[in-house]
Amino acid sequence: MSQEEKKQKPINFRDVSICEATIQMLEKAAKDGVETAFTRAAEMKPCPIGADSACCKHCFMGPCRLNSKDPYAKTGICGATIDTIAARNFARMVASGAAAHTDHGMSMLDVFREVVNGRIKDYQIKDETKLRNVAASIGIEVEGRETMDIAKDLYEELERTYTQVEGEIPFAKRVPPKTLETWHKLGIVPRGAMREIMEIMHRTHIGVDQEYNNIVKQCSRTALSDGWGGSMVATELSDILFGTPKPIVAGVNMGYLKEDEVNIIVHGHEPNLFESMISSVNDPANIEKAKAAGAKGINLLGMCCSGAEVLGRHGIPHAGNFMSTEAVIVTGAVDAMAVDVQCIMQALSKLSECYGTRFFTTNPRAKIDGATHIEFHEHTPRECTDKIVEMAVNRFQNRTARIEIPNRRDLGIHGFSHEYVNYMLGGKFRGSYTPLNENIINGRIRGVAGVVGCTNIRVKHDYVHVECVKELIKNNVLVVQTGCSQISLAKAGLMKPDAAVLAGDGLREVCETVGMPPVLSLGSCVDNSRILIACAEMVRTGGLGDSIADLPVAGAAPEYMSEKAISIGHYFVASGVYTIFGVTFPSIEGTKFHKLLFEGLEEQGLGKWDFAVDPIEMAHKMIAHIDKKRMALGIMGERERKLFSMEDRRVS
Amino acid sequence: MSQEEKKQKPINFRDVSICEATIQMLEKAAKDGVETAFTRAAEMKPCPIGADSACCKHCFMGPCRLNSKDPYAKTGICGATIDTIAARNFARMVASGAAAHTDHGMSMLDVFREVVNGRIKDYQIKDETKLRNVAASIGIEVEGRETMDIAKDLYEELERTYTQVEGEIPFAKRVPPKTLETWHKLGIVPRGAMREIMEIMHRTHIGVDQEYNNIVKQCSRTALSDGWGGSMVATELSDILFGTPKPIVAGVNMGYLKEDEVNIIVHGHEPNLFESMISSVNDPANIEKAKAAGAKGINLLGMCCSGAEVLGRHGIPHAGNFMSTEAVIVTGAVDAMAVDVQCIMQALSKLSECYGTRFFTTNPRAKIDGATHIEFHEHTPRECTDKIVEMAVNRFQNRTARIEIPNRRDLGIHGFSHEYVNYMLGGKFRGSYTPLNENIINGRIRGVAGVVGCTNIRVKHDYVHVECVKELIKNNVLVVQTGCSQISLAKAGLMKPDAAVLAGDGLREVCETVGMPPVLSLGSCVDNSRILIACAEMVRTGGLGDSIADLPVAGAAPEYMSEKAISIGHYFVASGVYTIFGVTFPSIEGTKFHKLLFEGLEEQGLGKWDFAVDPIEMAHKMIAHIDKKRMALGIMGERERKLFSMEDRRVS
Repeated sequence: MSQEEKKQKPINFRDVSICEATIQMLEKAAKDGVETAFTRAAEMKPCPIGADSACCKHCFMGPCRLNSKDPYAKTGICGATIDTIAARNFARMVASGAAAHTDHGMSMLDVFREVVNGRIKDYQIKDETKLRNVAASIGIEVEGRETMDIAKDLYEELERTYTQVEGEIPFAKRVPPKTLETWHKLGIVPRGAMREIMEIMHRTHIGVDQEYNNIVKQCSRTALSDGWGGSMVATELSDILFGTPKPIVAGVNMGYLKEDEVNIIVHGHEPNLFESMISSVNDPANIEKAKAAGAKGINLLGMCCSGAEVLGRHGIPHAGNFMSTEAVIVTGAVDAMAVDVQCIMQALSKLSECYGTRFFTTNPRAKIDGATHIEFHEHTPRECTDKIVEMAVNRFQNRTARIEIPNRRDLGIHGFSHEYVNYMLGGKFRGSYTPLNENIINGRIRGVAGVVGCTNIRVKHDYVHVECVKELIKNNVLVVQTGCSQISLAKAGLMKPDAAVLAGDGLREVCETVGMPPVLSLGSCVDNSRILIACAEMVRTGGLGDSIADLPVAGAAPEYMSEKAISIGHYFVASGVYTIFGVTFPSIEGTKFHKLLFEGLEEQGLGKWDFAVDPIEMAHKMIAHIDKKRMALGIMGERERKLFSMEDRRVS
Repeated sequence: MSQEEKKQKPINFRDVSICEATIQMLEKAAKDGVETAFTRAAEMKPCPIGADSACCKHCFMGPCRLNSKDPYAKTGICGATIDTIAARNFARMVASGAAAHTDHGMSMLDVFREVVNGRIKDYQIKDETKLRNVAASIGIEVEGRETMDIAKDLYEELERTYTQVEGEIPFAKRVPPKTLETWHKLGIVPRGAMREIMEIMHRTHIGVDQEYNNIVKQCSRTALSDGWGGSMVATELSDILFGTPKPIVAGVNMGYLKEDEVNIIVHGHEPNLFESMISSVNDPANIEKAKAAGAKGINLLGMCCSGAEVLGRHGIPHAGNFMSTEAVIVTGAVDAMAVDVQCIMQALSKLSECYGTRFFTTNPRAKIDGATHIEFHEHTPRECTDKIVEMAVNRFQNRTARIEIPNRRDLGIHGFSHEYVNYMLGGKFRGSYTPLNENIINGRIRGVAGVVGCTNIRVKHDYVHVECVKELIKNNVLVVQTGCSQISLAKAGLMKPDAAVLAGDGLREVCETVGMPPVLSLGSCVDNSRILIACAEMVRTGGLGDSIADLPVAGAAPEYMSEKAISIGHYFVASGVYTIFGVTFPSIEGTKFHKLLFEGLEEQGLGKWDFAVDPIEMAHKMIAHIDKKRMALGIMGERERKLFSMEDRRVS
């Protein structure tokens, strides 16, 4: 088929997404004659050798390409084997993903320092209890001390997470002792995040580390500096500064755009910008300007992880996840979109122009061709966000694009935190993870699964997330979620307590007793650290083994797309969690590197990687792992002892 | 032609190298039936899209491949343009290269700290004068103070080079004020090297920095943290700890292997291992062991940049540059090869096995499949090197491989430093760069060229270096060299004073007056920082403009192969130097990114990138730039005013 014919073949958008709002907007885009990632993907064949991680661009004798079918048939020009090449490529993915969270965490730490020393006035410490708890968790004296004194000590301790060149990151103190012992044995306790990232970039240079097992160790150390470092610091400080999320009813989907209001969307990852925007849109002077322009008010929505941060924290509606970010613009209703960092498609800039949406970059690290750059300064945050509001109002007055807002609004409960899980299950006066552990031990809850991560054009949008999670809860697995994945499930209605009817008997009983949904929304992708802390709490509470690797838990990123996902996946694996990814996996089955990730790491006392594209298969692989752990713990009831075949599972 | 036929086509080794020793060994390898990079390269077609930097593997929607012929015809799935993609790829090269030098510098700093606090006894401060000079250059009080007190202050200052998250690296104080002013204006003064590297890895994540100009700024800041940071610290501390090189007659080539001695080669980059090995092989007890095994003694040689470090510093012979590293093993005469980090072909491990050579990795960052790992600890360095000597002696006793040592030995003068250039031209009592500047102003010396960098299988080995340098000196351009390039020239005999006959009249007169060769050997690839300091000195001395960008100088890496070379090239460009690379260039002509590197940066007051494959064209592009700067300085004599066409130049 020629390129021309290919281009003419219309895409059936029902084949590429299950999100009705997104499908409606893709159809509008087609009518409007604008391209989206969905149309571009149809014309872009992924490089098969690159997808297998069988090419190496790390020097200028290449790029060398190995044979994916017979990967040991030859080596790179320098002699690098498929194992070296795949491990190196994987390491750079981890480095980039960890760097994203490290930089995000460092930004939060900068704000925290300036709030503590009084130089930033626009933010303050909102959750003193959390501040004290976090400080105490890493050995800072809190009894009888002033909040600000504790805060200063906490700042100094946490800075080590990034800058120190020797020693162990502070939050290593939160790791269950047996898990930490395994890390010590393997030499993978992170020093400082910046050093680990830098060292990966050195080791993956031509002619440095050429033993895949050694490279993977450095991947583990670096990924752990993300999970228990960069990401965890980002989450904890965001909670301290902006409030720890508590369950709140909030809406998701494009129907929360309002034709008669000034619509502003914040997209990206760091909460600072969003918090300031909340302040700007609630300023009566700005509302007055909007009204003077003929609008009924200002309507603020979130998108991607910026949206996930405030969905749970403040109940601000969320317009859509990664694969819907273009579709949201296609509504024509967005007057301004402000972005900061990560997962912002460059195409949004040109697409915004097509629809007259004002598109703003705000972070010095992330400019985009064609965007208006209004730099966000933490010391004067309102200068940036007020300006964006003003220009949004201006665009509202001068709207020319045809507006079509999909009539889709999905309410659910968001804003669970590991602290709230404590309270929710234990109650106010006996807050603990004991009830969770007990319900796992007694079999009502079979295990806990984290289903997280991006959405990806290469699989049916939202579909893999939704089907995988449905299968899990049907089999009594409690699901926790973050990032784009939770938006998929929120749209599918699974974040409502009445979704408990979809759960198996045991899980349903627990959900109905507590009044909680079977799927818990935990926040943005840096908030995967909440899952790590929850795992550590489960171990500490007792009855489920001595290390995270003993727990009947599993993780999945069914539609992952970013290098951050690889870093997150690997820190879960290195923490002891079975982790399964969909879409594609950057290694070739049968190679030593692949075996190390999929088998060897578990033998070393860590978790393991796995891979499946089909959501039902993915769910049952997770369940099989959970059952294996239950069996090892001696808590496998008679009912579950029957080993189902895949066929049994599919018809069950 | 089928794959089979291709395999059978014999390589004429005279087509791929001008190094007689290497050619002889490639012929031996062919007879011995072992493969080398030269045979592997014949069967490995570089990926053309990858070579154009037109593919992006930074997320799992791809890898996306753009059309090299029509790079703006489409974008990646996320909308990333060719400019974003090429800039991102370039940025990761810079990050890896800078990380290599940063990690190397940090290792040196660790040793320095431990020497200063007395915990390391095997090394000591050898060059107190240099210690005082370096300290004074960054504002540390030295008058009347104890050496160790100054050393402590210096340690603390230099640590900031790596760890600090705000501010400016200490050696920014050495940058000519007008150059620094340009950096300030552009916002590219480096903070700390680790932060810059981490930030590149964040910015190049999907959906972050998508404006090529902004990405290139971060490349500049990161590369400068290498040149004026990681690399410069490595060089200065190596000189302080192991002695500043002074010109010394030393030999290069495989003929320095000795059939009747135990041959040990150290290959890699960090001097610590080599310094300890020098101590080990000079230990009478070890020599006794060698003699007891029937050897006449122990013969220590260097290779790659480890070799370049000690060639100038101690006059230890150098066996070969990067493209000869396998050929050296093929001699069969190497009893042990000890490697640390960078540019160590993984193939050396298997090849060593073929020839019975004991192959040792020593650095925890760099293991190699099949190598014996004996970890080098700075506090007990001799434990590692003594063990390697022992195993080398053992291999000597059990040699089975057929030994053939090429009868090639090339003497030259090595070990110039920026300090020595000062002395050499100025004399002991009026040491300064004034005579150099004066000879440039009066036209005897047309300008100064740094010709540096790797060797690369994709061009004729050594040939491009040698022909380019010959053409430069013929045109009165004084050449300074580092790394593998200087080994190419040493083998060609251009590091001898009598090579001045090959120079143009003016340069020849200067060389003969001073008694120096027209090509000066400055050390390893981290020692490119010596060239930066020399440039700063030339500006400070006066008469050649106010900034490095004003100087009639140019740089070239005719056969570069590594990502370090990209970082080095970019720090020269960002420092103001015209820099030309050979082989291939990771950008597509005509794209905005390419234009920024090749034109735009110069317009911003920095240097510029250029590209040529042919050595004579390369030399004349450098000369044209030098003449442009002479013209701007008003020091272009009548003789040079005639503008030669390329044809004129070729026949001149």
